[in-house]
Amino acid sequence: MAPFSLDRWSAERLARVEQALSEWVVADAPAGLGEAMRYAVLDGGKRLRPLLVLAASEAVQGNADAALRAACAAELIHAYSLVHDDMPCMDNDVLRRGKPTVHVKFGQAQALLAGDALQALAFELLAPEGTSVPPAVQAALCRLLARSAGHAGMAGGQAIDLASVGRALTETQLHDMHRRKTGALLQASVMMGAACGTSSETARSALQDYGAAIGLAFQVVDDILDVTADSATLGKTPGKDAAQDKPTYVSLLGLQRSRDYAQELLAQAMQALDRSELTDTRALRALAMMVVNREN
Amino acid sequence: MAPFSLDRWSAERLARVEQALSEWVVADAPAGLGEAMRYAVLDGGKRLRPLLVLAASEAVQGNADAALRAACAAELIHAYSLVHDDMPCMDNDVLRRGKPTVHVKFGQAQALLAGDALQALAFELLAPEGTSVPPAVQAALCRLLARSAGHAGMAGGQAIDLASVGRALTETQLHDMHRRKTGALLQASVMMGAACGTSSETARSALQDYGAAIGLAFQVVDDILDVTADSATLGKTPGKDAAQDKPTYVSLLGLQRSRDYAQELLAQAMQALDRSELTDTRALRALAMMVVNREN
Repeated sequence: MAPFSLDRWSAERLARVEQALSEWVVADAPAGLGEAMRYAVLDGGKRLRPLLVLAASEAVQGNADAALRAACAAELIHAYSLVHDDMPCMDNDVLRRGKPTVHVKFGQAQALLAGDALQALAFELLAPEGTSVPPAVQAALCRLLARSAGHAGMAGGQAIDLASVGRALTETQLHDMHRRKTGALLQASVMMGAACGTSSETARSALQDYGAAIGLAFQVVDDILDVTADSATLGKTPGKDAAQDKPTYVSLLGLQRSRDYAQELLAQAMQALDRSELTDTRALRALAMMVVNREN
Repeated sequence: MAPFSLDRWSAERLARVEQALSEWVVADAPAGLGEAMRYAVLDGGKRLRPLLVLAASEAVQGNADAALRAACAAELIHAYSLVHDDMPCMDNDVLRRGKPTVHVKFGQAQALLAGDALQALAFELLAPEGTSVPPAVQAALCRLLARSAGHAGMAGGQAIDLASVGRALTETQLHDMHRRKTGALLQASVMMGAACGTSSETARSALQDYGAAIGLAFQVVDDILDVTADSATLGKTPGKDAAQDKPTYVSLLGLQRSRDYAQELLAQAMQALDRSELTDTRALRALAMMVVNREN
């Protein structure tokens, strides 16, 4: 087998995802709404969630149309959460991916609506009429995405985050917050990819563990970068968590132990793939390494 | 056949819906989120959308579990839209159903998150694991709900609404705004009910027309009540549209022509049911009359 290149693998998938997002995130929504939705989604971000969906789907020989839809849907949920999270009543951030945030550019009301419409669009993409995606796959994708986005996942994690400002959290509480806030959607991205095809119980269980490990690793690395990276590299305002007195892995464990913990989670992700009995997990492995070793 | 009593018919269905909402809108969401979600949904509202879902489902002998889930999901979308719509950056309303609005009671950040989580929960309800609801029905329900909630429906209508403050709209533009903002979800409620069972193309087309007519009628009556009802009857602040210089049917057509128009739409809804070839449309008929003749 030729050596695996994540860059080459990603480039082809990212082109497909960008093309699909540009087609599906409608410009013709009324009264400027489409413009705000596109601004929130297009031309920005690492597209980690789409890549995880596609890598997992390829590992189980999933339906390609279903996987592309799930990839875009996961990204839309991520994008909408950033729009709402940046609003003045939440984190009040003015810079995102090096650009003014949506509410700065389009106003708060439009930002609120654009986020709402992006969440609806995510589910619309997952339940298409007249495609090759079997109804059972559509239903499974909606289930996975809805659970990861809602009170048990992302929205719940953000509620904990809000309530935790200025309070000391234990490591268990910090895990629980991040497992929901960031981890749930990353793990769901992996499991949505898996739901696009068929796989053994062993494989699904291993992918669950893989998703949980990289979901947590992502946040640990985020916390590290918040104190070590500069604004230009990060594309957003660094040092915000400390300034807002938010509990982070770095504030709880210190920088070195946070770095060790990220490496430990990477090892767990790799071990999960080792026992998955899946034939080709190279993209999933490379993405796990990217999550932990990224610089922004 | 015994004479049909909407009160009796509704009472039994409303008890089921309230019970299901109370069970499904989770109290154990973290950090106060569940409390805000329940406050936004429970013990309030006419539950028109759930009743439309159940009436349409019964007219096509639909799957009862699917219909109850769809009924609650439609109500959750409605409830979340009210929470976000009331926020200071939107309509800035402090009174809803005679109670302080969610952001007044729980703060803006929690209101934003509660709305987001309610939307996710709506789709979660539609895609249950291990139930009698066939996957194809789950997928159809997700599709109908997502379309009606997103840019082509409710969120798009609200964007037009925002952009229209202080501007003169033509009757066509006003129709388009309300068809999306309120009509889409009411029509989708009818069509979700229909999707819980099987029906002829004739029946589905008639239900589409019925849903469109009562969707529009609902808004015309809303505009009438905004100028004729008092706060105690209405349960919210009346006269707001005029105060905010928002275009309404009353401002466009005048009060008498608005009342005539509502009756005309009621007649259209009834005629649609006449040609539906469905055996028992009594609940749908009674609901249409309730929509037009309601006092709040």
